[in-house]
Amino acid sequence: MSQTLRNDRFLRALRREPVDCTPVWLMRQAGRYLPEYRASRAKAGSFLAMAKNPELACEVTLQPLARFDLDAAILFSDILTIPDAMGLGLYFVDGEGPKFERPLRDAASIAKLGVPDMEQDLRYVMDAVRVIRRELDGRVPLIGFSGSPWTLACYMVEGGGSRNFSTIKAMAHGDPKALHALLAVNTDAVIAYLAAQRAAGAQALQVFDTWGGVLSPAMYREFSLPYLERIARELDRGEGADRAPLILFGRGNGAYLGDLADSGAEGLGVDWLVELGEAARRTGGRVALQGNLDPCTLYGPPEAIRREVRLALDSYRDGNGGSREGHVFNLGHGMSPDMDPEHVRVLVDEVHSHSRR
Amino acid sequence: MSQTLRNDRFLRALRREPVDCTPVWLMRQAGRYLPEYRASRAKAGSFLAMAKNPELACEVTLQPLARFDLDAAILFSDILTIPDAMGLGLYFVDGEGPKFERPLRDAASIAKLGVPDMEQDLRYVMDAVRVIRRELDGRVPLIGFSGSPWTLACYMVEGGGSRNFSTIKAMAHGDPKALHALLAVNTDAVIAYLAAQRAAGAQALQVFDTWGGVLSPAMYREFSLPYLERIARELDRGEGADRAPLILFGRGNGAYLGDLADSGAEGLGVDWLVELGEAARRTGGRVALQGNLDPCTLYGPPEAIRREVRLALDSYRDGNGGSREGHVFNLGHGMSPDMDPEHVRVLVDEVHSHSRR
Repeated sequence: MSQTLRNDRFLRALRREPVDCTPVWLMRQAGRYLPEYRASRAKAGSFLAMAKNPELACEVTLQPLARFDLDAAILFSDILTIPDAMGLGLYFVDGEGPKFERPLRDAASIAKLGVPDMEQDLRYVMDAVRVIRRELDGRVPLIGFSGSPWTLACYMVEGGGSRNFSTIKAMAHGDPKALHALLAVNTDAVIAYLAAQRAAGAQALQVFDTWGGVLSPAMYREFSLPYLERIARELDRGEGADRAPLILFGRGNGAYLGDLADSGAEGLGVDWLVELGEAARRTGGRVALQGNLDPCTLYGPPEAIRREVRLALDSYRDGNGGSREGHVFNLGHGMSPDMDPEHVRVLVDEVHSHSRR
Repeated sequence: MSQTLRNDRFLRALRREPVDCTPVWLMRQAGRYLPEYRASRAKAGSFLAMAKNPELACEVTLQPLARFDLDAAILFSDILTIPDAMGLGLYFVDGEGPKFERPLRDAASIAKLGVPDMEQDLRYVMDAVRVIRRELDGRVPLIGFSGSPWTLACYMVEGGGSRNFSTIKAMAHGDPKALHALLAVNTDAVIAYLAAQRAAGAQALQVFDTWGGVLSPAMYREFSLPYLERIARELDRGEGADRAPLILFGRGNGAYLGDLADSGAEGLGVDWLVELGEAARRTGGRVALQGNLDPCTLYGPPEAIRREVRLALDSYRDGNGGSREGHVFNLGHGMSPDMDPEHVRVLVDEVHSHSRR
């Protein structure tokens, strides 16, 4: 932890300090679109085996940094490690995404849940953070992360991905007390999990509220927002230059950026459904913003990628009173396996060169 | 066409005239959640065979009206009839939704497309409208519909449903001229299709922009909004009491309600991601609003359904200067096969009884 960071653009942007150019990293930058990732995965045998092996998790975390001029690394892991450690039995079915052997369906099974022991039940995550920090050796900061309480609850109650989230919404309407009990224990666990990742060496922390955007405004304000606010309020992230900033990312959070900016989080991750300049106006310089190119832009030709990068950078600047400070460039959601690594290079290089001008 | 309408609440609400209570219909109200629908479908052999048979289409259109006190019927059909008539070869794979045998992938195949002959290539739709009007016999008005130019294009280019719309977005970035050519011919076809449905007897017309909400604001304003505006401007919908109002429904259209309200459409269909009162404030009485209960509310217990119905009704009234005028109650999206018909009854009856008070 005592290494000097050789590239601190990302952390400076999250503190809204001046930078030489806008920092950039990409959600799911370590992933199947990279042939070296597919090779690591083949070696591991499965996604979960790779995520649970600190050396392999480190290997794939560093892969995109070897190729592209990225300004941050993000821990390679899964967002469902917490419910797995709670005993729900995480497994993966090819082409169907994550599933749980023992989904939660009633208040009784929720009442039995407890916060996992971070250095025991989730030791493989903390070990991965430690190994990655050592191997990064101060090149760029390392981001730790967790699913949001609501997003974890979606998977825990639905038992996997869902088309319309009918089971958890039925619980929200039929037994809101049980759902709040689940969200409360999830929040305790997320706070402990992120704190442990920071203690292990994570220099920034991101919460993925992937499914907050499926809720009506009234339900978002009841079942997702208050728990994000509690994380922002209660998570100890250190002081001064050592402080690990917290980023709240949420798909469909455009309508709530004002509230989220008041939460105390240092950064907000924004999807592509809101213009970045408009997001900057709504948050008025109270937080840094991270985002927000439509990932599908990467399916376009290089010239279109460059143009869209410039538009996003300038939209932020225009909404931020003419300054590029406080912006971390990213996609509005994660990358997909069929994307072209060379297009990622085009994106990353254009972010740096255009914002340096 | 000369019958007197015995229940004209729906049309009065779309004209923002006073009504005795708020009218209600539900997207996909004729559907698999009804055992009698499943029986009709079994008789027909397939969804498409049912949609292409005017008598069966009429049979299933009327089924929900026999059960519930609904204020409108909607033509039973598919949103992809136009591209099918253009020669793309619509077919269905169980559990996977619609597919096209010959999806569009380049400017050359797009240049070959023409507007279908409505009374020839799509005669089965017009016949269904005529049969349904006759069988409805003035009970409630009949809604005709079409997919939006952008939404049709999504299926035509992707060749079916899509997780991230990568193919059409690649075209939007790589060959925007080809995509605009496709959207232009789609718009011509939608206008002709809706006009033909009106001529056959449809008393209101709805455009489903199911996938507009996957676009960034800049892309929505380039690839979806202008074509919706052209439909609203160019579609002849008659005059006076015979005028067939146009409703523009769009998932994720909350950010664009102000623009859509200026399009000239009589009504806007709103999903559940925006509060109805806020939608009313954004549109300021320029249009009627239709919506917007989260369909998953129907998975909740009856008491929760009643409460959510009342909240939506009152939210609209509060945002509409204290008046319930100009509101058509609906879901924010279509119903699902595993919903309980008895819960639909609870919803419909609560809309009427609460708004009558």
